[in-house]
Amino acid sequence: MSVPATDSGTLTQSDPTGLHRVLDDDGHGRVLPQAAQRLDTRREIWPDEVRVRVETLNLDAASFRQLETKHDHNGDAVRREVLEIVATRGKMQNPVTGSGGMLIGTVEEVGPDSPLGLEVGDHIATLVSLSLTPLVIEDGLERWDGKGERVSADGYAILFGRSIAATIPDDLPPALSLSVMDVCGAPALTHRVVAKYDQPVVAVIGGAGKSGSLSLAAAAQAGCRRTVGVVPTEEEAALLRDSGVADAVVVADARDPIALRDAVASTGGLADITVVCVDVPGCEGGAILATADHGTVIFFSMATSFSAAALGAEGLAADVTMLVGNGYAPGHAAYAMDLLRSHDGVRRLFERRL
Amino acid sequence: MSVPATDSGTLTQSDPTGLHRVLDDDGHGRVLPQAAQRLDTRREIWPDEVRVRVETLNLDAASFRQLETKHDHNGDAVRREVLEIVATRGKMQNPVTGSGGMLIGTVEEVGPDSPLGLEVGDHIATLVSLSLTPLVIEDGLERWDGKGERVSADGYAILFGRSIAATIPDDLPPALSLSVMDVCGAPALTHRVVAKYDQPVVAVIGGAGKSGSLSLAAAAQAGCRRTVGVVPTEEEAALLRDSGVADAVVVADARDPIALRDAVASTGGLADITVVCVDVPGCEGGAILATADHGTVIFFSMATSFSAAALGAEGLAADVTMLVGNGYAPGHAAYAMDLLRSHDGVRRLFERRL
Repeated sequence: MSVPATDSGTLTQSDPTGLHRVLDDDGHGRVLPQAAQRLDTRREIWPDEVRVRVETLNLDAASFRQLETKHDHNGDAVRREVLEIVATRGKMQNPVTGSGGMLIGTVEEVGPDSPLGLEVGDHIATLVSLSLTPLVIEDGLERWDGKGERVSADGYAILFGRSIAATIPDDLPPALSLSVMDVCGAPALTHRVVAKYDQPVVAVIGGAGKSGSLSLAAAAQAGCRRTVGVVPTEEEAALLRDSGVADAVVVADARDPIALRDAVASTGGLADITVVCVDVPGCEGGAILATADHGTVIFFSMATSFSAAALGAEGLAADVTMLVGNGYAPGHAAYAMDLLRSHDGVRRLFERRL
Repeated sequence: MSVPATDSGTLTQSDPTGLHRVLDDDGHGRVLPQAAQRLDTRREIWPDEVRVRVETLNLDAASFRQLETKHDHNGDAVRREVLEIVATRGKMQNPVTGSGGMLIGTVEEVGPDSPLGLEVGDHIATLVSLSLTPLVIEDGLERWDGKGERVSADGYAILFGRSIAATIPDDLPPALSLSVMDVCGAPALTHRVVAKYDQPVVAVIGGAGKSGSLSLAAAAQAGCRRTVGVVPTEEEAALLRDSGVADAVVVADARDPIALRDAVASTGGLADITVVCVDVPGCEGGAILATADHGTVIFFSMATSFSAAALGAEGLAADVTMLVGNGYAPGHAAYAMDLLRSHDGVRRLFERRL
């Protein structure tokens, strides 16, 4: 708790969760920044905060896809909506998907009580979601065409006491680092789950993607028996095979549960651990059916429906453990960077997406 | 796979998942019954199916609350909507919450290839969700006033090859059994998670409710250090204290994350395992904040938002495992019944809700 930097008219002390920047109240008390409709974006920082000069926003894939589809790939319309969301909500949180993304920038000011260990001038990426990060855009996004997830932007963002930011390594291009950090929770959690099993079979749905390829590499490193990468097209299958990251590669539409189950089974049996890394709705049933009894399904896709997963497993009498993919684990960014550095195949898959 | 009982005009073989009763196709293949908009409710059964004569539907609490709120507690309007949902979808699945409930009835016909071990005349409860169970209502729900989750009904329902049904025990009133079976996944999973920790502290949000009180009893039996029951009102606190099911009882609004965190902490520290059993939206942040590092949050509420949980934990830099509460585990119904039989306090909490 800290005294206010300015007279807020609201809370006079800051909370490490950022509660002091929440402007709305849902009638049951103040909500956390992620659940809030609107955040206070004042430039002045509380003593435990950090202000960052923004260079690039990296929109969450599910969020960008929703915007792109809604506006029929009209980049100007997508840009206008992003500007409107940020202006209205004080943060970049897609109102439909609920998701945000992350940002890259330079530390501009550090409050005297900040526990994050940052210094003015540090080149960093934030590892908390844009969906809870106070953000002001000052350039109208004029350098962005609205046609990709990477958004060049000028403006500022605020980090709270209980936040996460990682310094961008010198040996990798910044865009590549950002791209890795964006999904670094997936390989960390995959590693942790795989290590609890005895040589499990691991299937990754969306294996040629960013979180997917890192999860495959993490599974191999954590001691799985074999990995199966599931991809939607022959083109992605060729890329994934070429990368050498998966022991087996199969093509299936993850939204077709029977097709997904049969595709995974065709590689030598169901998976002990299934990792869902595709940003399309409707993959819950297939992931559950592709997983053996006593197995674990890890959902990393923001398109996951909680009730579809819970009721799907019950409806299929499936004795599987289902995890909500937590984007945070201690050391997750450094671990993901190391996986990328040591797997040329993973690095190639990332670089073709930059 | 079995030959069809009648010429379906669609699939000629049945699938244990019930796929052969799905009428819609989302453009990417046939979806599973839970995800389907509409099911085939034909009376004739496939060889691996069972037809049940329905006596009572037990609507999922989140679903009933949504309907009740939408129609401003007008029972006739609630009844009309339930009838319309079932007539339109061929199943009782609330289009807003996605959830269903369960049913009680008598086995009417058993296909020759059914693996469920049921016989004609068995008095059973289905333990798969109504959200994926083909259902026809034949009495216009004339015996139900639309004012409670228990719906007296006449009609029939279909069970698939891969379904779950439990015979209703003779020593308990049927309504009580149904009420226990409806939530029996919660104590089973809670027991399993608690047993993996060394004497954890277990907090149950909604501890005076059905799944909550059973989860508290399961946690105690699985060897936790102490249990904390969190309830929204002093009235519920008195009931829970009187039941003797929780070591500590605290009052907090679970939608207020800071209040929830502080209430749990006030009992002697954060929880190692937090079980969310309240059917209101917005409890994800508080549950995460109430849980210690390396702890586990189990979400049993159908009101849980996947993205709020995933992004909430990331945004709070919380190193917690988050589980989607799976309604199924082998032996879950028998285990929950035994907990009820051996805990008078749990039984009293259930009986006052009948």
